[in-house]
Amino acid sequence: MQIAVLGTGPVGQSLAAKLASLGHQVTIGTRDVEATMGRTEPDSFGNPPFSEWAAQHTNIAVATFAEAAAGAAWVVNATNGAGSIAALEAAGETSLAGKVLVDVANPLDFSQGMPPALLVSNTDSLGEQIQRRFPDARVVKTFNTMNAYLMVDPTLVAGGDHTVFVSGDDQDAKAAVTELLESFGWSDIVDLGDITTARGSEMLLPIWVRLWSALGNPMFQFKIAR
Amino acid sequence: MQIAVLGTGPVGQSLAAKLASLGHQVTIGTRDVEATMGRTEPDSFGNPPFSEWAAQHTNIAVATFAEAAAGAAWVVNATNGAGSIAALEAAGETSLAGKVLVDVANPLDFSQGMPPALLVSNTDSLGEQIQRRFPDARVVKTFNTMNAYLMVDPTLVAGGDHTVFVSGDDQDAKAAVTELLESFGWSDIVDLGDITTARGSEMLLPIWVRLWSALGNPMFQFKIAR
Repeated sequence: MQIAVLGTGPVGQSLAAKLASLGHQVTIGTRDVEATMGRTEPDSFGNPPFSEWAAQHTNIAVATFAEAAAGAAWVVNATNGAGSIAALEAAGETSLAGKVLVDVANPLDFSQGMPPALLVSNTDSLGEQIQRRFPDARVVKTFNTMNAYLMVDPTLVAGGDHTVFVSGDDQDAKAAVTELLESFGWSDIVDLGDITTARGSEMLLPIWVRLWSALGNPMFQFKIAR
Repeated sequence: MQIAVLGTGPVGQSLAAKLASLGHQVTIGTRDVEATMGRTEPDSFGNPPFSEWAAQHTNIAVATFAEAAAGAAWVVNATNGAGSIAALEAAGETSLAGKVLVDVANPLDFSQGMPPALLVSNTDSLGEQIQRRFPDARVVKTFNTMNAYLMVDPTLVAGGDHTVFVSGDDQDAKAAVTELLESFGWSDIVDLGDITTARGSEMLLPIWVRLWSALGNPMFQFKIAR
């Protein structure tokens, strides 16, 4: 399947590489290809520049948001949550229409320093904002409750015995995303309900960042014991 | 130990009965003893009237918030989150000073119907509001992420293999509450940090209520797999 992964950070890289390894044709989308490929310094979190990763993944194309989305059957939003709506607008409403839009972003607000708060929460969510702004896209919120490495290899923690959530209004889109999650090795997949349930999974972030501090590393994940 | 449990709902009942069974001297506090004992109808959630439970637990005293708190070494806030500050004010600032105040309430807003949103979240929490209003109390937030039955018997789900969180500014108070949790049978107790981390555990409620719907029953609990 032709998949556009929007976002060149660790989450986009991790998902793009996994999807490509499973045989999908992956294009990574970015605002400005030349600027993205031209950066030679680590980002503000200390991650190596994208161009290094791209040089090691020559089977994955790099294109603008619009070019990546236009050719894709599915679109994955792995952009910074604060800029996701703008990135998806750049991808183009027409190019998103009718497509499964996997939203893995969190609306984190780093403007007041660490730990981040949420830009939207409680009575709304980024997942809902995206679904409202792009009503013809088939938005499925998932993967936003964990570290990027865990998304693509759940066995890295507790032998994979933990839970991934899906939220969305389109049952067929959720079923298709659930199959994709299974192809990544996920077995405990909980369908929370419609896209308003993205409030719940996005509101896990405040405890996630505190657990990162309390436990000393980001390799943990929520399991719904039952 | 002399413990005041403020709140006569299922959470207060469950905690009071467990504490009494462990040999503590427990007084349940309520705003108006006569009104509470005089109710003969189930509450709005269908729970039987408190007087039925009280008749079966004659070893547990019932008193006003103020009377219960005055005689106690520890105070447990098991009131409705929307009324917790008022209930604690009725208990009396002087009676809370220097004492461990175990806050198990959630600031749920049922005013817009189900599912509830939170009255405070993201940049503040009920735990912090209580600590600010009663600066001499030693507030420890815990137990607010689960069903009342599970609080007092973690083995009811997954053999007890799940996680309870504690948040608070007073290390000695957190250590003492951790011992109490252990006496209830808890083994995976995560200290999230200071009282501002109560934002994180309170913000689990939106996904908790959706999981209740998705799973069809409230007997589940968060495990931090790691």
